[in-house]
Amino acid sequence: MQVPLLNDRDLDFLLYEVFRAQDLLSRPRYEEHSRETFDMSVATAKKIAERYFLNHYAKGDASEPQFIDGKVVVIEETHQAWKAFADAGFLAAPYSFEEGGMQLPETIMGAINAYFYGANPGTSGYCLLCLGVSNLIREFGSDQQKRVYLPHLKSGEFTGTMALTEPNQGSYLQGISTRAKLAEDGSYRLFGQKMYISGGDHDLTENIIHMVLAKTVCPKTGKDDISLFLTPKYLVNDDGELGQRNDVALVGLLHKMGFRNATSTVLNFGEKDGAVGYLIGELNHGLKYMFQMMNEARIGVGLFSATLGYQGYNYSLQYAKERKQGRSAAKRSSNGQVAQVEIIHHADVRRMLLTQKAFAEGGLAMTLYASSLYEDIQTGATVEARENASMVLDLITPVVKSWPAKYCLEANDMAIQVLGGAGYIREHLVEQYYRDNRLNPIHEGTEGIQGIDLLGRKAGSHAGQALTTLLSWICSDAEAAIHSNDIENLGKALLKAAVDVESVTSELLLVVADDRERGLANATVYLHYFGRLFAAWIWTLQALKASKGLSCSEVGGVDYAFYKGKLQTAQYYINWELPKMEHERAILLGAYAEPFEMKNEWF
Amino acid sequence: MQVPLLNDRDLDFLLYEVFRAQDLLSRPRYEEHSRETFDMSVATAKKIAERYFLNHYAKGDASEPQFIDGKVVVIEETHQAWKAFADAGFLAAPYSFEEGGMQLPETIMGAINAYFYGANPGTSGYCLLCLGVSNLIREFGSDQQKRVYLPHLKSGEFTGTMALTEPNQGSYLQGISTRAKLAEDGSYRLFGQKMYISGGDHDLTENIIHMVLAKTVCPKTGKDDISLFLTPKYLVNDDGELGQRNDVALVGLLHKMGFRNATSTVLNFGEKDGAVGYLIGELNHGLKYMFQMMNEARIGVGLFSATLGYQGYNYSLQYAKERKQGRSAAKRSSNGQVAQVEIIHHADVRRMLLTQKAFAEGGLAMTLYASSLYEDIQTGATVEARENASMVLDLITPVVKSWPAKYCLEANDMAIQVLGGAGYIREHLVEQYYRDNRLNPIHEGTEGIQGIDLLGRKAGSHAGQALTTLLSWICSDAEAAIHSNDIENLGKALLKAAVDVESVTSELLLVVADDRERGLANATVYLHYFGRLFAAWIWTLQALKASKGLSCSEVGGVDYAFYKGKLQTAQYYINWELPKMEHERAILLGAYAEPFEMKNEWF
Repeated sequence: MQVPLLNDRDLDFLLYEVFRAQDLLSRPRYEEHSRETFDMSVATAKKIAERYFLNHYAKGDASEPQFIDGKVVVIEETHQAWKAFADAGFLAAPYSFEEGGMQLPETIMGAINAYFYGANPGTSGYCLLCLGVSNLIREFGSDQQKRVYLPHLKSGEFTGTMALTEPNQGSYLQGISTRAKLAEDGSYRLFGQKMYISGGDHDLTENIIHMVLAKTVCPKTGKDDISLFLTPKYLVNDDGELGQRNDVALVGLLHKMGFRNATSTVLNFGEKDGAVGYLIGELNHGLKYMFQMMNEARIGVGLFSATLGYQGYNYSLQYAKERKQGRSAAKRSSNGQVAQVEIIHHADVRRMLLTQKAFAEGGLAMTLYASSLYEDIQTGATVEARENASMVLDLITPVVKSWPAKYCLEANDMAIQVLGGAGYIREHLVEQYYRDNRLNPIHEGTEGIQGIDLLGRKAGSHAGQALTTLLSWICSDAEAAIHSNDIENLGKALLKAAVDVESVTSELLLVVADDRERGLANATVYLHYFGRLFAAWIWTLQALKASKGLSCSEVGGVDYAFYKGKLQTAQYYINWELPKMEHERAILLGAYAEPFEMKNEWF
Repeated sequence: MQVPLLNDRDLDFLLYEVFRAQDLLSRPRYEEHSRETFDMSVATAKKIAERYFLNHYAKGDASEPQFIDGKVVVIEETHQAWKAFADAGFLAAPYSFEEGGMQLPETIMGAINAYFYGANPGTSGYCLLCLGVSNLIREFGSDQQKRVYLPHLKSGEFTGTMALTEPNQGSYLQGISTRAKLAEDGSYRLFGQKMYISGGDHDLTENIIHMVLAKTVCPKTGKDDISLFLTPKYLVNDDGELGQRNDVALVGLLHKMGFRNATSTVLNFGEKDGAVGYLIGELNHGLKYMFQMMNEARIGVGLFSATLGYQGYNYSLQYAKERKQGRSAAKRSSNGQVAQVEIIHHADVRRMLLTQKAFAEGGLAMTLYASSLYEDIQTGATVEARENASMVLDLITPVVKSWPAKYCLEANDMAIQVLGGAGYIREHLVEQYYRDNRLNPIHEGTEGIQGIDLLGRKAGSHAGQALTTLLSWICSDAEAAIHSNDIENLGKALLKAAVDVESVTSELLLVVADDRERGLANATVYLHYFGRLFAAWIWTLQALKASKGLSCSEVGGVDYAFYKGKLQTAQYYINWELPKMEHERAILLGAYAEPFEMKNEWF
């Protein structure tokens, strides 16, 4: 079954009606752009995504990368996709014209990425990582590093990885044991093993640039610091030509349940004399630098999740419109004969489709919103606007990573359920969406880690100013909804939820300050609780614009149906999902501690 | 990583403390048994399950059945498992001694099945289906059918299938188009295609007995009726020897995301002169007969789900006890060095383990309870006891099918999450549990169908007497808890939930009577709502016995820890899961109709 990639009308709505990308044209950086150039870039992305990424979504799953004669081989279609992506200039798309880029704003980049991620998350993984490494080098690398590596990364000759995790520490980066020793020439020699390194080896490009976290001894304190090292698979001569093979060895491939077309590797650095690594920026700043890439990747994971949710929604929607099965209680014909109806007529199927719509479109909107903040940080009109965007993006990153991961996986679960038996056979794509999406609540920081990040670090950051700013924006939109004709109830529910989050957060932060371990024990519940408010806001934002759009639409037309769908979905979210906050608040404020107080020997 | 199969102590607790299987010994049918013979049978099952089923759990997934030269070939280990299961007499275990069986009660059969299902659901599928077909023939077959087929089915020479579903009707059995025509010899000729037929072909046995639903013209009314036909792959001569190949052809294998070691097939009946089928029982009773097997299979699906949930719990628990990662906020050592702790010390990991425990042990208890009712239907002391058991089992079957399927899949999701990145690579078993379990909310009737069955058929059955009986049992246990020393809160919460379900059900049934389609629109929500009460009862039953056991246990001993764990889990369920009923009630009573009222063109 062929289904559309995302939904052009929805993406258009989000870009120009909700997040007003056209307003960016008045910012100096984008004055040479127009809505037409934005649209053309997105259309090109869609075309390439459909032709070169979507074409091997299933094949890349069934024919995952193989380790043959010491080389990792990916299927030919992935080579073509990589080439098409690079040739179209997307590896430099956000960079300035002088850098050879397209100087596209982040919001538009979000839409571009959405098409690629939705078409093939595995293959897109290589693109995301390559861009992330370029960004790191641009931001923190030396001039020499920029000169030698960036051209190759932007042209698609090289790819990149983020090499953080090790077998013995997982998410606990402070616990890494890879060491970097200063060599006489000023470079470093790395020794250690890294695991779960996506894109850590493959035959897409001749070279791979690993961004490796490793420990060094701080010259001042004598203590261990974590620094970041640019560590190529092949050394690169100063003229840009490839030199000798670096001491980086593939130990093996890991076999994932999803994202199978993207390799996941175990790498040894320094089996012989040490892998040559070049310090990025300053010593002891490795974690800080890495978190730039990590935060980008977290938003990226949100987008992966959302687009997988979207594809599952599209797939099950189309199936439900075509597949006849069962009868409608309301439609018995007079002679007792009962015609089978398309399953979309069954209320429970509509419930599962509407829930998917709420999660998938909500997730996409959420990640595009994050992209718009990322844009504001860079090109916002005032210092205050840039600072606010920075604070709020920092605050919501754990939510934008984990909300789509959680709920769009649930959406994929429902896509399977809509198809029934057809949903769990590999002859249909929905089971692959589900397997692919199952990685997203884990990689780039598990849900538990996002919860601790949100409650333990972000909720009280900037002396609470980040949260206060976000809540003020939410309340302002809630007021707008309250004063509308048709979505007053959304506004009221949103306002109540915002007030609620404010008071619950204050109370929890007191507990955290008093006893950090107990205070953070239910941080994942807080993440879910906070996420509902945030999602309700995202839906209210859409409802406000849909309400406006509806009033200008011809009754019965395509736009009318589109806006009605948005409004109905917003109502669904407010009535069916948002109220689950009440129980979560009870858990949080009641400090229910059954898990916390459970003894190991009682399990 | 090797993990235990289920938990012997828990199974013992459920069998003898909660559901008091020893009381069955006073029933005439079991007077030759003893607790020792019960235990021996269960121990034998466990031994065979560990040796012949568990050994190829992963291999059967990676090496799924192949279609080679017109034959379906399963791996050698599955042949050995089938032989071991049959040789140990388990294909006849519930039957009387005279029939060559072990005359074991259903409750004990539940425990036996739990070990096999937990060890290898795919391979166990063949066993479940074979027993179900034997049961159908025993109950409704002719003497000749019993004489010819039962010995082969009980010995493991033949296997069986249930052939209901067709490509064009899915769950809607009234819509099947397979036809049966009366032949001159009194047998029938079948023409039609069946799909998703588990075990529909394989090389485990020389013959396969398909139980096929097909339409016949009712001689009285001239209308189409659905009847049930015994349709062998090879015809069987009256002396029991195999005759010629029947006109049943394998069209192809379906490739599932889970349960891969059990074939799923598309079969053509009557490509030539028609497949020879023998009427079971009377014409036009096919659906009724089939529902005996279907109801057994639904309880079986509950057990599959629960044991998969259990295995995931065991796996992630052991991993969490062994894997060191991160630090405990409470455990910084004085010199600033921070030792990594086993991840079970992280509150969020404990939350995921405790939730899994609640779902897996709750699901297992629920299915064993259903088995005990099935036993009471057959050997209950009084007519009233037998009738009550029958009414209540009928009522709760959709819940016993769907609650474990939903929540033990969630448990498997959490098992993956506990392992983090290790959870989504195929090098660990948790991702296979998750894939296997994803079939359970679908096969043998989707969640949506169970919801409609519960609210549309069962909740008001016997003029409400079934529900009233169940609620009176629940309230009586709630009272017992209220009058205990330590679980008063459980009793109160349970009582409140029971009263709640009674009133919500009454209101909903009025709506259903008035407008069936609208009334049933949120039937799945009702299923979840009802399921929470039922699960809370199952946990209160366990808590009552745990409370009693605790008072006789030595503090600090193994039993003490076991009972404390049960009590803590019951508290978890009551505080964390049961209160979610409130929002579901609001949806149900508020008749929230966003999905119902959503228009097709708005999606």
